[in-house]
Amino acid sequence: MTMSNSPEARELRVDLGDRSYSILVGTGLLPKIGSLVSPLLRSARLTVVTNPTVAALYLESTLASLRQAGFQARAIEIADGEEYKSLSSLASLYDRLLDDGVDRGSAIIALGGGVIGDVAGFAAATTLRGVPYVQLPTTLLAQVDSSVGGKTGINHARGKNLIGAFYQPRFVLCDIDTLATLPRREFLAGLAEVIKYGIILDAALFSLIEQRLNDILAHDQDLLVHLVTRSCELKAMVVSRDETESDYRAILNFGHTLAHAVENLTEYRTYLHGEAVAIGMLAAARISALRGHCRPDGVQRIETLLKRAGLPTAIPASFSLDDLQLAIEHDKKARDGEIKFVCVDEIGRVSFEMMPSRVIAEMAR
Amino acid sequence: MTMSNSPEARELRVDLGDRSYSILVGTGLLPKIGSLVSPLLRSARLTVVTNPTVAALYLESTLASLRQAGFQARAIEIADGEEYKSLSSLASLYDRLLDDGVDRGSAIIALGGGVIGDVAGFAAATTLRGVPYVQLPTTLLAQVDSSVGGKTGINHARGKNLIGAFYQPRFVLCDIDTLATLPRREFLAGLAEVIKYGIILDAALFSLIEQRLNDILAHDQDLLVHLVTRSCELKAMVVSRDETESDYRAILNFGHTLAHAVENLTEYRTYLHGEAVAIGMLAAARISALRGHCRPDGVQRIETLLKRAGLPTAIPASFSLDDLQLAIEHDKKARDGEIKFVCVDEIGRVSFEMMPSRVIAEMAR
Repeated sequence: MTMSNSPEARELRVDLGDRSYSILVGTGLLPKIGSLVSPLLRSARLTVVTNPTVAALYLESTLASLRQAGFQARAIEIADGEEYKSLSSLASLYDRLLDDGVDRGSAIIALGGGVIGDVAGFAAATTLRGVPYVQLPTTLLAQVDSSVGGKTGINHARGKNLIGAFYQPRFVLCDIDTLATLPRREFLAGLAEVIKYGIILDAALFSLIEQRLNDILAHDQDLLVHLVTRSCELKAMVVSRDETESDYRAILNFGHTLAHAVENLTEYRTYLHGEAVAIGMLAAARISALRGHCRPDGVQRIETLLKRAGLPTAIPASFSLDDLQLAIEHDKKARDGEIKFVCVDEIGRVSFEMMPSRVIAEMAR
Repeated sequence: MTMSNSPEARELRVDLGDRSYSILVGTGLLPKIGSLVSPLLRSARLTVVTNPTVAALYLESTLASLRQAGFQARAIEIADGEEYKSLSSLASLYDRLLDDGVDRGSAIIALGGGVIGDVAGFAAATTLRGVPYVQLPTTLLAQVDSSVGGKTGINHARGKNLIGAFYQPRFVLCDIDTLATLPRREFLAGLAEVIKYGIILDAALFSLIEQRLNDILAHDQDLLVHLVTRSCELKAMVVSRDETESDYRAILNFGHTLAHAVENLTEYRTYLHGEAVAIGMLAAARISALRGHCRPDGVQRIETLLKRAGLPTAIPASFSLDDLQLAIEHDKKARDGEIKFVCVDEIGRVSFEMMPSRVIAEMAR
């Protein structure tokens, strides 16, 4: 892969045996997608799955680049928003794909944020028992979270991501330029996940964000390339060790037990996922200090950084203890009422502690 | 695994690395399912997915055995028949599973024929991104065809099995006793697939069926244990060589290109799948002879055996050439109008020939 035209581009290999793939992070990459995927896909026919918002910005240039590289390319738009990460969206996506004659010589390209990636990825995993797919994440959250791990799926009335599959993409391209058109609130929500990687695995990354937060918020491109690459690298390291989340991978859930509870209790309407994660991370850090895992100054650094980044940090006072406990238990990682809770020992290092949901709810409030 | 109480039981290992599993074939096994799966499943909660017909015969003893072995076991019944291998059946199965509180400590047990195995297997593959499942196939077709290969899925208005996943069971138990309650027509349809294994891979198996057809039709138990075990063994050999059907596995499609076309043109109402396969196999054998692959006496042996077994062998004269061609192209194995057609070279050996759909349609009629 030639990087000569985009000096900032960095390539990262996710090592999963015969399902290994590359993540390319840089600027000015999306208009070159055709020549970039051409050596990787034997598929002649590509379907770009996107939403109207992203389509208005990037679909035309994406299709043009794919066609110039010799692919037959068409697009399917699905509605924007978490509420469309549903079985009915998936059903209409199947209809469109199969009506368009998807076959074993076809591939699916997800162009958009996490919802697009999850739904399109699950459709790719399950159409004709699996067709190749490529991810072009256009939000910071999707770039740092969905690029690695192979999680695809949809929500169910009973909870988020309850239906899905592990399915690896053939290639992921993170074009930092797409973050320029991202609403600031979504950018910050993505940054919460980057901060998470710092807390759980990389003290230097956390310090870098502390020191250069203003440049990050001003969209310094080199910094963003670094943050996305490093986040993917850290997640890839975790996932390579434990592809199916049986054990070690659970460290990625730092802050997520309470984030899911907060999202659940606000019916996914009040907070973006990354905002809920910010709330969940501070609560998890406080619980970690209460249980003797980390010192109070670690908690303080986390709180200060999240607040400087303009992220919410407080669990709504309106939640009752019982509701919070129930929401914690409802999270699918619960096993017989005991939660494998991720505690921070110091910035850059975490450990697990089994805790009853009641205890977590009490300490979180 | 102790076989002392069922001397006829035979165990076959399907070798797929960390997804390897055993198939146990014999008599009197279903009432012992609890103790048989107990060492294999860490899951505490089991959901048996079945249909009303099978439930009336085998559900009570299955649940009793599972509970006796210490499992929490409950059942979900889905409607019987190919038309219920649909997204709406799957959706209601998801609802039931999630309402019942399926979690990472749960497993799914498919008790029934191919439809149950395919739908329950796909639900297992995609609920919480995959929970363990066990297959208890109760039809001859499901025992010899679905036990091996990891194919799960549902139909779509555009065609059969267009939505699905490759997902391996933890264990398969084929209790020959369940074939005693199988309608004769379904038994014969299953036998068509056994004959297929003989044609494509095992001349001795084909000869055995020729010689002992009357005993097979009289449900000789030792013979049935042998036929099911040998069929699974042959399929496992193929699948181990090529798990995701990129190439070699396609030999299993012998007779199936035309079978699918026949099923499609009769809207799946006239023939059972195995009956359509019998029609497709004789047509494929004739085409093989016309293209110089096998000698006419090979075709004659296939025709004679299928007819002695009471299976249909003639492509309906009402099909027009155009309709047949279109139905052949519609089959999902078509690639740019050319079909990778499986030809028989002699009983027990096949090879591929790329043929235009029109040529296949002309020779088949």
